[in-house]
Amino acid sequence: MAEERNERPLRHDRHSVVACALRLLDDVGLPDLSMRRLATELEVQPSALYWHFESKQQLLAAVADRILSAVGELDPSTTLEDAAQAILDALLTYRDGAEVVMSTYALRLGAHGAQRALLGVLDGDQSAADALFEFILGHATLLQQRMHAQSIGAVAADAADPAEHSDEVFQAGLHAFSAARSRH
Amino acid sequence: MAEERNERPLRHDRHSVVACALRLLDDVGLPDLSMRRLATELEVQPSALYWHFESKQQLLAAVADRILSAVGELDPSTTLEDAAQAILDALLTYRDGAEVVMSTYALRLGAHGAQRALLGVLDGDQSAADALFEFILGHATLLQQRMHAQSIGAVAADAADPAEHSDEVFQAGLHAFSAARSRH
Repeated sequence: MAEERNERPLRHDRHSVVACALRLLDDVGLPDLSMRRLATELEVQPSALYWHFESKQQLLAAVADRILSAVGELDPSTTLEDAAQAILDALLTYRDGAEVVMSTYALRLGAHGAQRALLGVLDGDQSAADALFEFILGHATLLQQRMHAQSIGAVAADAADPAEHSDEVFQAGLHAFSAARSRH
Repeated sequence: MAEERNERPLRHDRHSVVACALRLLDDVGLPDLSMRRLATELEVQPSALYWHFESKQQLLAAVADRILSAVGELDPSTTLEDAAQAILDALLTYRDGAEVVMSTYALRLGAHGAQRALLGVLDGDQSAADALFEFILGHATLLQQRMHAQSIGAVAADAADPAEHSDEVFQAGLHAFSAARSRH
């Protein structure tokens, strides 16, 4: 399994480090995803991780790109609704996926594929594409926090729960961005 | 200063507990805002806080309402742009303000004033109002995370920083929700 690169023998390449980080994310969640814990999981010293990633933020950016990797393969004829739904689905696939992407996008790292897809369906309007991405991230973050709260029993099962109209809210947002585009 | 309520003497009322929590939030940030730390600040036992708030989430909901309290006083003739800007300004006034409101709104606690304001400017369209609130929360969270990263030097000062076009992105989002409304 050992791999030679840049004169230094490494047991793991970038790809396998990111894959392990993603598994760990699903297991423990973002707050507990530390470089130390990831190193333990990979059976290496934490310093070995910095051989691949200069900081935790750089690692999280690679994780964010992996989370959104399905979005990069969209057909050019994809609609705004389909692109947005593909991004939402990708974010919701992994525990804390929305928060990982939010935190790296805040530093302008990662998520480039999703941004390109939105730019495509919004006819190259950069501000609108960024705004739509911010809406999707806000929606996904709220949804994941709510699902997490329900899973640990922090929200009463019989509470009036507008999660049930969550899809309607998402469609209302997409409708707005579609409406604005067609008026240009 | 002691106050009698429900047979039990208390040194603080709900209002002063929330005011202290808000000061502490500004000082230490959301991740370090614990009930224990708040109790120490108020010089009471943590159990005394639960006399006022049955959980940390209930306390954070009251903090979220305080953060957004300026929004509740909007004039009925307020435009969508002004209402959204007032909410954004309120969220950005306090450290981690957006994340506090996001985390309580995810549980459907707090933020009712802001929701009412958005419902008003969107002619009672609940789904559109919720979507717009999600956009504002996403925008504000990203902005605060970016400002925080810059303040601790995690983002190079000379990095290509689209924070400079942040206002343009916010306006693009508001334009979309305006456009959708006027088509009804």
